[in-house]
Amino acid sequence: MHEHQALQRKIQQILPMAAFNRWLDLKLVSATPGEVTLQLPWREEFGQYSGFLHAGILGALIDTACGFAAITQTDRVLASQYTVRCLRPAVAETFVIRGWVVKPGRQQVFAAAEIYALGDEQRKLFASGDAMLVPVTA
Amino acid sequence: MHEHQALQRKIQQILPMAAFNRWLDLKLVSATPGEVTLQLPWREEFGQYSGFLHAGILGALIDTACGFAAITQTDRVLASQYTVRCLRPAVAETFVIRGWVVKPGRQQVFAAAEIYALGDEQRKLFASGDAMLVPVTA
Amino acid sequence: MHEHQALQRKIQQILPMAAFNRWLDLKLVSATPGEVTLQLPWREEFGQYSGFLHAGILGALIDTACGFAAITQTDRVLASQYTVRCLRPAVAETFVIRGWVVKPGRQQVFAAAEIYALGDEQRKLFASGDAMLVPVTA
Amino acid sequence: MHEHQALQRKIQQILPMAAFNRWLDLKLVSATPGEVTLQLPWREEFGQYSGFLHAGILGALIDTACGFAAITQTDRVLASQYTVRCLRPAVAETFVIRGWVVKPGRQQVFAAAEIYALGDEQRKLFASGDAMLVPVTA
Repeated sequence: MHEHQALQRKIQQILPMAAFNRWLDLKLVSATPGEVTLQLPWREEFGQYSGFLHAGILGALIDTACGFAAITQTDRVLASQYTVRCLRPAVAETFVIRGWVVKPGRQQVFAAAEIYALGDEQRKLFASGDAMLVPVTA
Repeated sequence: MHEHQALQRKIQQILPMAAFNRWLDLKLVSATPGEVTLQLPWREEFGQYSGFLHAGILGALIDTACGFAAITQTDRVLASQYTVRCLRPAVAETFVIRGWVVKPGRQQVFAAAEIYALGDEQRKLFASGDAMLVPVTA
Repeated sequence: MHEHQALQRKIQQILPMAAFNRWLDLKLVSATPGEVTLQLPWREEFGQYSGFLHAGILGALIDTACGFAAITQTDRVLASQYTVRCLRPAVAETFVIRGWVVKPGRQQVFAAAEIYALGDEQRKLFASGDAMLVPVTA
Repeated sequence: MHEHQALQRKIQQILPMAAFNRWLDLKLVSATPGEVTLQLPWREEFGQYSGFLHAGILGALIDTACGFAAITQTDRVLASQYTVRCLRPAVAETFVIRGWVVKPGRQQVFAAAEIYALGDEQRKLFASGDAMLVPVTA
């Protein structure tokens, strides 16, 4: 419990250090070892041609959730590669992004993430993705 | 020549239809059959933790350049998957994004893109990526 | 039940039609709508430099399991792209490969697969991966 | 020149150490710093359902060519992830596989590869792909 509060505080501090995360107005909902949940309230500026959430934003969310999942278990990481699978048109008042570590490692961390609508009990995925992250050796 | 002007006009019209593209202030530089070049001037809001271009923005640029390359040869497309490889810290006054079609197709289009700094004659890549796009059947 | 037997028979018939599958001596264990399980007994010829299962074989298994998962729900498909994540050295007497459909579709099917050792109750993954498959329109 | 001969000898020695490479009967054609070319003569056992080269073999070739390209510049590496894009049905008497390093690195190496038919001057690609490789620290 206390450990989880410490993890949340750690990510809470890191999240707004990225200017783009501040612009997104991304919220941390929970952080446990190896897993985070984020929320993003919809704004007009996030739209693609048809008014759905832009695939670029989907990617930013997957990259960020994977990175945060990784840093629940290690120090700073950098994404070296990520993939976004756009499964269906992304429309919601608030998006939920869940990221988790698939395989931790000293040289690299494999993580995955998925995006669905807040309140959708079936969790129909708008997008799923994965990332490979590399610990930053200061 | 005239064909290329028509292509440029077509993409010029589509580009600002996506609210997120307007926010990015993405510029079309050229469009020829199967290839486009875009530019993005740096802004503070694009930064990640260390002030480099956010990996999410890199992804949005790759997704967009791949999509525009595809629509030089077909009608509307949707990205169904894209991958971003973050090769080095992305720092520039203006970023150049080149997207091209690897393999056109009726059911799906394979495209690729790369990002480097305007004025860098060596074109050292900040990121490369690829996308699979599906023609939208209205 | 009867439906599952019909699915199994369908895949049982298709599996040995690929010469490479026959060489692998790949076995179908189960097939239900949207999911298949396969097994591959280890042979010396499958090895990479250190005697682990070759990453190319891991890829063939992921590609095949994703394709079979897809054809539990549709007619013939072709893989248009697949990705293999090599999570740990793959050593087992018999490998289990589970493939499932993430998102069916008329134009494309997203599927995923994972590989672990027969008898490993923790199912520690040797590899995971995903594929995009396109229905073949005869 | 001499350096290239040393590289060729190095890879020539490593290639047959993998049992699966021996079964494939994969040939090294050339190796220069950051790039290799391989050839694979067609055999019946490599076929998928329609008699084209099996997507799993395409993946094994991409994985192997990327790995060999990496070890022209570093010591032993392991593929941690690779992606195969199946662009068109792969039919040839002999397949050519070209692999090259996109971005070397101490922690990870990005490489790419492509496959086409020997004698096809247009080099129409059957498949393209990329891999991320991690140097093995003994």
